[in-house]
Amino acid sequence: MRLATLKTDAPDGRLIIISPDATAYAEAPVPTLQAALDDWAAAEPVLRAVTLFPHRLDLRALAAPLPRAWQWLDASVYPSHGALMDKALGITPFKPDWPLMYQGVSDTFHAPLAEVPMADPALGIDFEGEFGIITDAVPMGTNAADARRHIRLLVQINDWSLRALAGPEMKSGFGWVQAKPPCGMAPFAVTPDELGDAWQDCQLAAHLQVHWNDVLFGDAFGAAMAYGFDALVAHAARTRNLVAGTVIGSGTVSNENYREVGSSCIAERRGIEIVDTGAAQTGFMRYGDRVRMEARLADGRAPFGVLEQTVVRP
Amino acid sequence: MRLATLKTDAPDGRLIIISPDATAYAEAPVPTLQAALDDWAAAEPVLRAVTLFPHRLDLRALAAPLPRAWQWLDASVYPSHGALMDKALGITPFKPDWPLMYQGVSDTFHAPLAEVPMADPALGIDFEGEFGIITDAVPMGTNAADARRHIRLLVQINDWSLRALAGPEMKSGFGWVQAKPPCGMAPFAVTPDELGDAWQDCQLAAHLQVHWNDVLFGDAFGAAMAYGFDALVAHAARTRNLVAGTVIGSGTVSNENYREVGSSCIAERRGIEIVDTGAAQTGFMRYGDRVRMEARLADGRAPFGVLEQTVVRP
Repeated sequence: MRLATLKTDAPDGRLIIISPDATAYAEAPVPTLQAALDDWAAAEPVLRAVTLFPHRLDLRALAAPLPRAWQWLDASVYPSHGALMDKALGITPFKPDWPLMYQGVSDTFHAPLAEVPMADPALGIDFEGEFGIITDAVPMGTNAADARRHIRLLVQINDWSLRALAGPEMKSGFGWVQAKPPCGMAPFAVTPDELGDAWQDCQLAAHLQVHWNDVLFGDAFGAAMAYGFDALVAHAARTRNLVAGTVIGSGTVSNENYREVGSSCIAERRGIEIVDTGAAQTGFMRYGDRVRMEARLADGRAPFGVLEQTVVRP
Repeated sequence: MRLATLKTDAPDGRLIIISPDATAYAEAPVPTLQAALDDWAAAEPVLRAVTLFPHRLDLRALAAPLPRAWQWLDASVYPSHGALMDKALGITPFKPDWPLMYQGVSDTFHAPLAEVPMADPALGIDFEGEFGIITDAVPMGTNAADARRHIRLLVQINDWSLRALAGPEMKSGFGWVQAKPPCGMAPFAVTPDELGDAWQDCQLAAHLQVHWNDVLFGDAFGAAMAYGFDALVAHAARTRNLVAGTVIGSGTVSNENYREVGSSCIAERRGIEIVDTGAAQTGFMRYGDRVRMEARLADGRAPFGVLEQTVVRP
C-alpha cells in the first residue's frame, strides 16, 4: 500500500491512497496520515480495503506524505559517509558504540516538488538523500526485536543542510539548529510489504538515484547501514516514548565505493575531493538549482515516486 | 492574562483562562492553546474579554499549558551555568559568538504535577529550572528587534536531563537525544504584560526557587542571560520559519554567585563541588524524589504557579 497527502488549506492536508501504477488515487476513509498512525490497527485494514482509484493523480498537488510530524530524528549510520564528513568538516572522529542521531525540526516537511526557500547561498546549501521510517506509538524501552513491528511506513527524505553552519554547531556539542532547516519528502509513504524482498532486516535494498540539475550525482545502495531501522527505533525509544508519527531517518545514503557510485550529498563529494587533492572543488547549490531523488528497486520500480526540489530566495 | 490547559481525552486538552487570584477559571472561547497561537491576533482580544471565572481551579486537573508543541528549542545562555557544565561534563569550552541552542523533543510536555517515568536512575536523573517563551509564527530572517513582538507567552520549564548520557552525546556533536527526555511545564502561560516591570529587555527579572524533596536547592535570578529571548527567537529563525507555538527555553537559570543563591539543576551543584574539591558529592535523583519549582517576582507573586514533579519507574 502506498499513501500520499493532497495539499489543502489545512496543515496536515488530505490523505489519499495511490493506485498500483501511481497514476490515480482514492480519497482515504481516514482524513490525514497522522490520524491513521494514531490508530494504525484500526486504520490499516480500512485503507487496504480501498481498491477503486477514481481520481487522476497530479504530483504537483501533493504535499509531503506527512506534512508535519511531532518528532523527526535523523541518524547517520552509513559508515563511509560518516568518515568522509568528519574529514570535510574538520571534526575529530568520534566512534561511539551506538548510532549517531540528532533531533531535527519536524514542524514542516516540504512537498516533493517544492520550491524551498533558503536564507543565503553563502551558507553552503546542500541536499542529503536518505531513507526513513514512520512509527506508530513506541513505548519507552522497546528493544530492537520489538521495534520492528512499530515500523509502519517507509519514506524517502531530502535532508536539506547548510554546511557553513554545520561545523561550528557540531563543535558546540549542542547539535544542529541553523544548519538543518526543514527536510523534504518524496511523494509516497509505503508499507514494508510493498517493498517485497527489498525490505531486508530493516534496511532498504534500493538504489537512491540523485540528480543535481539533471546530472547524475549519486546512485548509492541503501542496505549498507551499520544499524538497521529496528535498532534506530530502539535507540530513540531508550529514554522516551515515541508518539505515533515519529519519523526516523538513516542519514545520507552512502557506500564504501563512493568513487564509483557517487554520493547522495555534495558535502560527501567534497570530502572525497579533500581526501584526494587536499581541497574541495565542487561548490554548493545556488538559487534556481534543482535536486532530483528517486529510489529504484532491483525490478526498476520507484516505490516512493520522484522528489524534485528547487532552491529559491525566501 | 494567564492561560492554562485542562487535561482531557484529547492530546491538546482544553484551554482555560485563570482568574487573577488563581483560584478559579473560565473555559476559553478558543479550544486549545495551539489554536489560539495559530491566530493570536484574533484570539487574544477574545480571551482578554473574559472576566467571569465560574469554575474552581484544581491544579491536579491541569496539563502543561501547551501539552505538545511543534517545536522546542532550548538555549544555554546563563554564562555561569555553561562554564560549570563544561567542567562537570569534561567538555572543552566552546565560546561561540552566538547563543548555544539545541533542538529538543516537543511531542510531550509533562503536566505541572506529573509523575515522570524515567528509564533508569543510573542514567543520572536531573532537573533543570528554566524560563521559556512561546511565539506565534515567525518568518525566516526576523531580526531581534522584530522578534520581540512575536513573543506571545512566557512559561516556566523543567528540562529533565539524564546526565550519564549527556557527555557522550555532546561529544558526538549531534546533540542530545537520549539525554533529554520530554520536559515539564508549570501550570500557567502568561502574557508579557502580566509580568509588569519584571519583563525587562526580553529577560525575566524573577527568582526561580527550586526545592528538591522539600529542601531549598536554588534561588537564582532570571535576568542574567547573555542573550535575551528576542535574540534567541532571531537565532532560531535565521534559516527557518518558526511555526506558531514554537517554544524556546533559556537554559538552566544560573547566577555568578551560585555559591550563595544555589543552583537550578543538580549538575551545576556537582560542577561547583568538582571545582572546589575535585569530585562531585551530590548524587542525582532517585525514584520517588520530587522537584518543586516556582518563579517569584519582587512583589512575591508566582506568575507561573508551582511545578512539582515526581520521578517514577516507567
